[in-house]
Amino acid sequence: MDQSSQAIPVTPDNAIVWHNNRLYLLDQRYLPHQTDFVELNSAQEVAYAIRDMVVRGAPAIGITAAFGVVLSVMQAGDHWRDKIDADIKTLAASRPTAVNLFWALSRMRNKIASFEGDHIIKMLLDEAKAIHQEDIDANHKMGALGSALVEGKTRVITHCNAGALATGGYGTALGVIRSLHANGKLAQVYADETRPWLQGSRLTAWELLQDDIPVSLLADGAAASLMSGGDIGWVIVGSDRIAANGDVANKIGTYSLAVAAKYHGVKVMVVAPTSTIDMEISCGKDIPIEVRESDELLYCGGKRIGASGASVWNPVFDVTPAALVDAIVTERGVVLSPNSEKLAQLMA
Amino acid sequence: MDQSSQAIPVTPDNAIVWHNNRLYLLDQRYLPHQTDFVELNSAQEVAYAIRDMVVRGAPAIGITAAFGVVLSVMQAGDHWRDKIDADIKTLAASRPTAVNLFWALSRMRNKIASFEGDHIIKMLLDEAKAIHQEDIDANHKMGALGSALVEGKTRVITHCNAGALATGGYGTALGVIRSLHANGKLAQVYADETRPWLQGSRLTAWELLQDDIPVSLLADGAAASLMSGGDIGWVIVGSDRIAANGDVANKIGTYSLAVAAKYHGVKVMVVAPTSTIDMEISCGKDIPIEVRESDELLYCGGKRIGASGASVWNPVFDVTPAALVDAIVTERGVVLSPNSEKLAQLMA
Repeated sequence: MDQSSQAIPVTPDNAIVWHNNRLYLLDQRYLPHQTDFVELNSAQEVAYAIRDMVVRGAPAIGITAAFGVVLSVMQAGDHWRDKIDADIKTLAASRPTAVNLFWALSRMRNKIASFEGDHIIKMLLDEAKAIHQEDIDANHKMGALGSALVEGKTRVITHCNAGALATGGYGTALGVIRSLHANGKLAQVYADETRPWLQGSRLTAWELLQDDIPVSLLADGAAASLMSGGDIGWVIVGSDRIAANGDVANKIGTYSLAVAAKYHGVKVMVVAPTSTIDMEISCGKDIPIEVRESDELLYCGGKRIGASGASVWNPVFDVTPAALVDAIVTERGVVLSPNSEKLAQLMA
Repeated sequence: MDQSSQAIPVTPDNAIVWHNNRLYLLDQRYLPHQTDFVELNSAQEVAYAIRDMVVRGAPAIGITAAFGVVLSVMQAGDHWRDKIDADIKTLAASRPTAVNLFWALSRMRNKIASFEGDHIIKMLLDEAKAIHQEDIDANHKMGALGSALVEGKTRVITHCNAGALATGGYGTALGVIRSLHANGKLAQVYADETRPWLQGSRLTAWELLQDDIPVSLLADGAAASLMSGGDIGWVIVGSDRIAANGDVANKIGTYSLAVAAKYHGVKVMVVAPTSTIDMEISCGKDIPIEVRESDELLYCGGKRIGASGASVWNPVFDVTPAALVDAIVTERGVVLSPNSEKLAQLMA
């Protein structure tokens, strides 16, 4: 941790901070037990931080990568044109599933293509800041739209962390949950701990507790049992990529939750900005699903937990078919019972 | 660990050993990273070992408690009648869900009630050893019966540990899996890691690897995704208590797995000796479900993983309704599509 980050307050809304011409990320690998910022000065460092999950969450990855493009140009000075393409490629190769990464890099690339003049850094920094601010604005809009879908006071289950930490601020799924809470419509949040990376028990619980929103953690395998007896109204989750037909890629375990929700008559709400919708991909089976290393499952808190010699299957996302989704909430509006026609209309 | 346990080979089939007039348990809290035996000399020590999960698994708990009754009498000498009732109560209060505990204690109580003569210790030790041996024999029978249900070569998912470690030896669900393997009918075992206690990644993986049975670990939340693309034939699990109508209590996460199996057309096999069937309880909602302490979810490998201040819902069993179960395999025979009539016939 460098000294200058000490000026940055540690809150979930300050997970991505441009400060003193550097990018600071609140290190999500060690939250909430350590609250340190990592200082980044190059596109390579940004790509590493995304790959190693210093920052995670589809919108947050996109915003971070946009600032990575700014750092590339700042570091190269007058020679920025020589390396910008390679740096953008490095950033794009950091993780495969969240489409917001490619969407944000595409916006930065378009700015570069249109550039004429002297102030490339300022122009790119303005664009990165715009991507960041638009994401926050979208989250607040989605919070209101999602909250309006809920009648009466409800108990909800969320999975992974689709909060301020996963976005520019406020959150997607947790934005709706914040809005429900503000409107007096939230009885209780249940958060899956979300193995293997424990985004629920480490990040979502930390975020919600800071806002005094009542949260109970449970093992991922307990969610179906909770639905069978728990008077649960909604499952509310984020997404890493939504295909043109409404199939939803999200953190591993989301599909299991959606199948259980269907079985119990619990509704499923997916909250994601339109930057998460990939109209180039017709259905979920074409979404690249990242498989991460075995050690994520075999170690916990630095200690080995799994038996030596066991092989591991560790896909970190899954695909929930549109048929199991009751509503996709975006900043442009809500799509109920999503399908290709409705999403095409939304994105037109 | 005391010296005399060094004579006992460390294998999954030696998890409960009567040796030198003492009971030795292979400590499952620390497997597979440590392989130590705990020496027990009294019913109180046995009750503590069951409560703290030195030993776990419904049949194993029953066998252990039976030996606990022997220790009670050995320790009390001529005054054994003064404390045996209290000691049996202490043993019965150690855990609430697995009915095999009460079943085994009832067998020991019946022996005591019928006792006339001089050799109470020998009589009770013979009964405890019989309970142990009958369980092993039942597991081998169930292994053959369960394996016969499977056509061709199959890939299976199991949950928790229903192996040698959870029983007198050989295992219930893992007994069927061992039998499938021996018969050349097993293509692959997938084992849920089984949060929060990690019976899958610590115990099942360790057991199967010792027998060279191919096993892959996965996060509990990944099982539905595996079913959607993985050509899985069966979910094979054990049980802690089966109600008279065929509803099955088992490790938390089993119900989620059964719901996903139904959705994907994967068959569900529950393997349990008749000592697990509780004809006194008409349906699953009357089975007492143990809720254990929050720290099981909030700590892992001795380190805190969950955010401070979060509340936790930690039921360690759930109930799978009979309608989601394709077969209950017992040592007395197989019950397909279980219901009250069929179970009454089996238990008559």
